[in-house]
Amino acid sequence: MIILLGAPGVGKSSVLAGIKEKRPEYSIVNYGDLMLETFKQEYNISDRDQMRKSSIEQQKNVQKQVAIKLSAMSGKVILDTHCSVQTPKGYLPGLPFELLKNLNVERLILLSADIDEIYNRRKKDPTRTRETNKEEIQEHDQMNKAYLAAYSAFAAAPAIIVMNHDNRLADAVEKVNALLD
Amino acid sequence: MIILLGAPGVGKSSVLAGIKEKRPEYSIVNYGDLMLETFKQEYNISDRDQMRKSSIEQQKNVQKQVAIKLSAMSGKVILDTHCSVQTPKGYLPGLPFELLKNLNVERLILLSADIDEIYNRRKKDPTRTRETNKEEIQEHDQMNKAYLAAYSAFAAAPAIIVMNHDNRLADAVEKVNALLD
Amino acid sequence: MIILLGAPGVGKSSVLAGIKEKRPEYSIVNYGDLMLETFKQEYNISDRDQMRKSSIEQQKNVQKQVAIKLSAMSGKVILDTHCSVQTPKGYLPGLPFELLKNLNVERLILLSADIDEIYNRRKKDPTRTRETNKEEIQEHDQMNKAYLAAYSAFAAAPAIIVMNHDNRLADAVEKVNALLD
Repeated sequence: MIILLGAPGVGKSSVLAGIKEKRPEYSIVNYGDLMLETFKQEYNISDRDQMRKSSIEQQKNVQKQVAIKLSAMSGKVILDTHCSVQTPKGYLPGLPFELLKNLNVERLILLSADIDEIYNRRKKDPTRTRETNKEEIQEHDQMNKAYLAAYSAFAAAPAIIVMNHDNRLADAVEKVNALLD
Repeated sequence: MIILLGAPGVGKSSVLAGIKEKRPEYSIVNYGDLMLETFKQEYNISDRDQMRKSSIEQQKNVQKQVAIKLSAMSGKVILDTHCSVQTPKGYLPGLPFELLKNLNVERLILLSADIDEIYNRRKKDPTRTRETNKEEIQEHDQMNKAYLAAYSAFAAAPAIIVMNHDNRLADAVEKVNALLD
Repeated sequence: MIILLGAPGVGKSSVLAGIKEKRPEYSIVNYGDLMLETFKQEYNISDRDQMRKSSIEQQKNVQKQVAIKLSAMSGKVILDTHCSVQTPKGYLPGLPFELLKNLNVERLILLSADIDEIYNRRKKDPTRTRETNKEEIQEHDQMNKAYLAAYSAFAAAPAIIVMNHDNRLADAVEKVNALLD
């Protein structure tokens, strides 16, 4: 399994759309969607707000079910998730070791961009309600690299950072493509 | 358990004094004090110098006893410790995984400040004997963020960095306060 | 066991040559050489290209054999290896936790230098075929610090960064020397 990580504004959806076209043999699985689907099956919880408010036990159980589903997937899989999620209460690790230990990771790819590029993309995004500033983006970027190294050391998997610069989406798609078997 | 981390000069004592006033229901436990108390009970060792020179086996045993004491504490606890301790022989991790695995961590809070602010505060501190420079503070700050991410990924706990800027202690106290339940 | 880590251009060989002279009681073991030797014994594989192309199972078995050999070494050992290896497919962790758990680590030393110094040394190195640039060196340096913190937290071992600046090799050797028992 290939894991693609990235913060809001790095252009993960666009890169994944490009990969989908070039490499139809890969299944692209969104971790958040799979969590939500599993919450519905297990606890009849069907929106993200309820999901966040559920008990730690429920969340751990769902996370375990999701890991089982992911391990059971045959064929080539790209897992689309976050390196860390920035919340008002702190960074949530996207791949805590207790999740990672259940996954068979071939490669970790962190999609990123320059701080200014991320800042401008977030400002233009009409769906974003939260304000942001460059110091915050810089800190999140630094923390993401630190999380990436920890995941890589734990999973004994190679980790790479691919830059998705403005007006150079095709380059980023090609770089990710070259990392797939 | 909430864990509050921070290097010399970030103002951890002042922030904790503010929290103590606002949130008397929290017990604030200093990790170093608890280690020393336990060293005394177990090996009749009663000063920090002797503690540092004790055998690895003694240190590991005391660390384990401390973890047991911490886990047994009822009610709301803030553990006051270091993200990493800078010594002439290297950075010592404040929360090595073998300690962290025994703790029930709700949140990791790293208190920090700008490099210049930390530098000036350390220079004014009459109890500090060691010289410092900005490159060193910068490196320690970068390492602390990397340790923080590793702890967070291991413990599956959110990690946040709270800045304690000059003349804005009340803001830092309020930010930490907002992270307590 | 002391582990000495460093990227190409930081001058690890020169520092180790200096240590060899000053501290003949230490055995200096190169991890890559030991891997190759063990690949030959186990699978009759005798060059690095074949080694890289071998199966994951073979690589894991060899890594395990190498860890056993390292643990069995008596006396004082410096393990010479990489913090992370930069390859076209990503950073490979030099001390994945599954290797590190089998080693008895006393101290982690990351040898480094300023970005410009590393850049200039790599440019002058006639054996290097790959182009490099300062952004890449900067990113690798940042990732190495993050890996270092993760290794340190996992192994509960102190981590230190020693700078090997231009024309100050003797200083770097002396700093590493001071970290040996």
